Amino acid sequence: MLCQAASEMATKVMVLDPLVNCPASSIAYDHMVGSFDDRATVQEFAKRCAVLTVEIEHVDVATMEKLEQQGVDCQPKASTIRIIQDKYLQKVRFSRHGIPLPDFMQRAGDLFGYPLMLKSRRLAYDGRGNALAKNEEELTHALGGFARVIYVEKWTPFVKELAVIVGRGSDNSISCYPVVETIDKENICHVVKAPAHVPWKIRELAIDIAHKAVSSLEGAGVFAVELSLTKDGQVLLNEVAPRPDNSGHHTIESCYTSQFKQHLRAVLGLPLGDSSMKTPAAIMYNLLGEDEGEPGFHLAHQLIGRALNIQGTAVHWYDKPEMRKQRKMGHITIVGSSVGIVEAQLKSMLKVEGSETQTAVSPCVGIIMGSDSDLPIMKDAAMILNMFGVPHEVYFQTFISAHRTSEMMFSYALSSRDRGIQIIISAAGMVASLTPLPVIGVPVRASALDGMDSLLSIVQGSPVATVAINNATNAGLLAVRMLGVGDADLLARLSQYQEDTRDDVLKKAEKLQTDGWESYLNL
Amino acid sequence: MLCQAASEMATKVMVLDPLVNCPASSIAYDHMVGSFDDRATVQEFAKRCAVLTVEIEHVDVATMEKLEQQGVDCQPKASTIRIIQDKYLQKVRFSRHGIPLPDFMQRAGDLFGYPLMLKSRRLAYDGRGNALAKNEEELTHALGGFARVIYVEKWTPFVKELAVIVGRGSDNSISCYPVVETIDKENICHVVKAPAHVPWKIRELAIDIAHKAVSSLEGAGVFAVELSLTKDGQVLLNEVAPRPDNSGHHTIESCYTSQFKQHLRAVLGLPLGDSSMKTPAAIMYNLLGEDEGEPGFHLAHQLIGRALNIQGTAVHWYDKPEMRKQRKMGHITIVGSSVGIVEAQLKSMLKVEGSETQTAVSPCVGIIMGSDSDLPIMKDAAMILNMFGVPHEVYFQTFISAHRTSEMMFSYALSSRDRGIQIIISAAGMVASLTPLPVIGVPVRASALDGMDSLLSIVQGSPVATVAINNATNAGLLAVRMLGVGDADLLARLSQYQEDTRDDVLKKAEKLQTDGWESYLNL
Repeated sequence: MLCQAASEMATKVMVLDPLVNCPASSIAYDHMVGSFDDRATVQEFAKRCAVLTVEIEHVDVATMEKLEQQGVDCQPKASTIRIIQDKYLQKVRFSRHGIPLPDFMQRAGDLFGYPLMLKSRRLAYDGRGNALAKNEEELTHALGGFARVIYVEKWTPFVKELAVIVGRGSDNSISCYPVVETIDKENICHVVKAPAHVPWKIRELAIDIAHKAVSSLEGAGVFAVELSLTKDGQVLLNEVAPRPDNSGHHTIESCYTSQFKQHLRAVLGLPLGDSSMKTPAAIMYNLLGEDEGEPGFHLAHQLIGRALNIQGTAVHWYDKPEMRKQRKMGHITIVGSSVGIVEAQLKSMLKVEGSETQTAVSPCVGIIMGSDSDLPIMKDAAMILNMFGVPHEVYFQTFISAHRTSEMMFSYALSSRDRGIQIIISAAGMVASLTPLPVIGVPVRASALDGMDSLLSIVQGSPVATVAINNATNAGLLAVRMLGVGDADLLARLSQYQEDTRDDVLKKAEKLQTDGWESYLNL
Repeated sequence: MLCQAASEMATKVMVLDPLVNCPASSIAYDHMVGSFDDRATVQEFAKRCAVLTVEIEHVDVATMEKLEQQGVDCQPKASTIRIIQDKYLQKVRFSRHGIPLPDFMQRAGDLFGYPLMLKSRRLAYDGRGNALAKNEEELTHALGGFARVIYVEKWTPFVKELAVIVGRGSDNSISCYPVVETIDKENICHVVKAPAHVPWKIRELAIDIAHKAVSSLEGAGVFAVELSLTKDGQVLLNEVAPRPDNSGHHTIESCYTSQFKQHLRAVLGLPLGDSSMKTPAAIMYNLLGEDEGEPGFHLAHQLIGRALNIQGTAVHWYDKPEMRKQRKMGHITIVGSSVGIVEAQLKSMLKVEGSETQTAVSPCVGIIMGSDSDLPIMKDAAMILNMFGVPHEVYFQTFISAHRTSEMMFSYALSSRDRGIQIIISAAGMVASLTPLPVIGVPVRASALDGMDSLLSIVQGSPVATVAINNATNAGLLAVRMLGVGDADLLARLSQYQEDTRDDVLKKAEKLQTDGWESYLNL
């Protein structure tokens, strides 16, 4: 993927990989077959490169250090690779920089109590080199499985695993990508959701820690910072990888600058690019190797087949020469206009039960009203949305009501955003305090005061986009205008609608001028 | 770019190109050095391919036809290439399918009158093979320059050149990309704006003609349909290219499926992808070859240097072995949340005078009010926008006013969208009828009726998101909610703001419970 990014800017990438037909070999400028932890090979390879970078941290760091002394431009620096290769040193470094970490010790008896997490200091990735011991017996057993030096860490129960990709330029400028949530399956990264569905404060905390962690290291490049969110709202640093990472693959489709382009910019001494998202939501699904089934009948191929029919989907197949169980063979990224939409699309790709109808509709406007007495008014909003092809849903107070069954209202308001609703049109205003979505309020004329009571009640309180009494048509048009903020096509169609309406008015004006008011009124 | 797209899906692409170091050679699966209009070479090449497609239409079509008879899968079909190679046959074909074309004839005297456009029937592209004759003398001169068979076409003055990229699947399904505007310079495509800034009806007309034109041809692939928009609102077909085109390069960054991925999907018999835009606006700028300046000091390299510092920019450098004057050496695409923003960024890249401050700000919310008496109220909206880091601008009635100098109001409303404004907050509602943007109305309390007159006046008429009297804070918050529809980060920050506000209320409630109301009121 680094080579793909490089080819757009005609940057020539040399690859050192022991496999003759490794995925990068087909698009790299040149491929040197050899081991990246063999001194002579790395030295020979470095002679042919202007800048030396890594895509895996398990390289021969002693040789890298020697090369640096000889003036070879290594990005990130060998010192960084050395620290990161030893997870214990990594934690000591970050601890000294005031970064919150789980409690850890190099040698531990039963200081922490059980369960304990045993972690290999070196050559550990993707959960390999980790073991959970629930009691002393399991600890003895687990220790036997570790041939390498280990350290012990207090087992921290987490509610979510988060990650931040951080770009660091050769001028030490830093640019953080949005915080993502990573979901593992059997210790291997399985799904990545961007942005993470956590409160903004947690996101700020995660970005702050990631920023500090990368600042404490040397050299340019992209770094992946793994974090845990604990039950009590703490964000703890887990580890840092000095390279583009699986948790940032979604950036290829979802961000202005992909993590691969960012890594190239950084190591080449170019200014860092914009790391913000150009689509509001993205979800990445890893295609893992299976050992069952005939080639061509793997689940992965079925998923690819389905993905090709799902909106906003990009398939990446790495073409690794051999499929192995749990090996990352490719990934699928889905981008879209809301978290709700991309999650529904992932479910439909995975054929989660009951999801198919959900994706077919995927409403982005919710119209809610007190009771069926409001429907003759509120239907006008639905008619406008129909005209502009905006998918929407309509609900009665039987399910939700601000004044009567407020709990249902509460759950509707809270769930609406996750389900992909972007705008709520309501015959009451109260819902606005329960959601960050824009709420359009339609005051419906009740028996008393000609609806003036509704108008004044809706316009007060939380910010509600209030329209005229009974004017649900304007509520629909306002919703279309709001969606037009991010949809140039919809905006253009609305302009056309305005022009057509103006033409009608002009025609009428002409008729009045030609025929006179008596004829106009059929008098 | 086709090879780049193919590599993501591990599709192996063989390239036939006479240049040993042609750009594709470095990332293609294999490169056969040879001419694509030489019979023996094409036959040899086809033996090694499962599907044969073209990236340039000037190929040996007779050999393609022979290969098709031998069962080789050519996409699009040789018949299509044959028709497209001869611009006269092309026009005859489209004319028979009821597609609007400029008047044309195979041989013409002075039937049409001058100016006349002379067009070469074959091997014409990028304005090469076209000549404009303003009088008989020029005609004689121009004819001398055409070695090949020509036809004559009535010169059609156009206001804009448009283009539509059309994907056609092997199942004959058709998917059109948004209409773009192409701007030429010395007959070579220079800038492409997506979507085209033309009325929706014109877009629909252009899509309809493009759909019809591609339907009249045979085979799968991506087609580029060039169109002219005339002064009187007609859309005429100019020509069709049976391949990905310069007018679709922006799709790499701006659409869910790039034109190159779409072409691969089509020729491989896979379902077509979503051709809609994932960013509201895009602009593409061609980097043309120059013959002046030292290598490395070309304008192109200066532009690339500046582009790397501009948000939303992607640089493509083709690494063609030789720079020649007017040769397409690469391109730069800028994507962003509105046409105004990407245009301002292009200007800043090109260092158009006075543009630099414009891009620095690039406001997306416009706050407008009748006079400075409204400012003490309306400032609250600006304060909220400041808090959320939303760039905005503030204007007085001296420049714009609905009631007094309505012309100025008119021009503000019309220009705001083009300048990148996405939402208008106004102390009057009238502006809403002049723009498709969402307008938030703040009724400002005047001397009489406590502002009720303003409230009722704003809430009536065109759809305006009305807030409570004097509540510009809510107007600001509503604007943030609306922008949050397309900006997940902003939405998350708004959620946090709501939670913080709730916490404040809870703290007060606790204080009331603990201290009693007397102490609370300091009685």
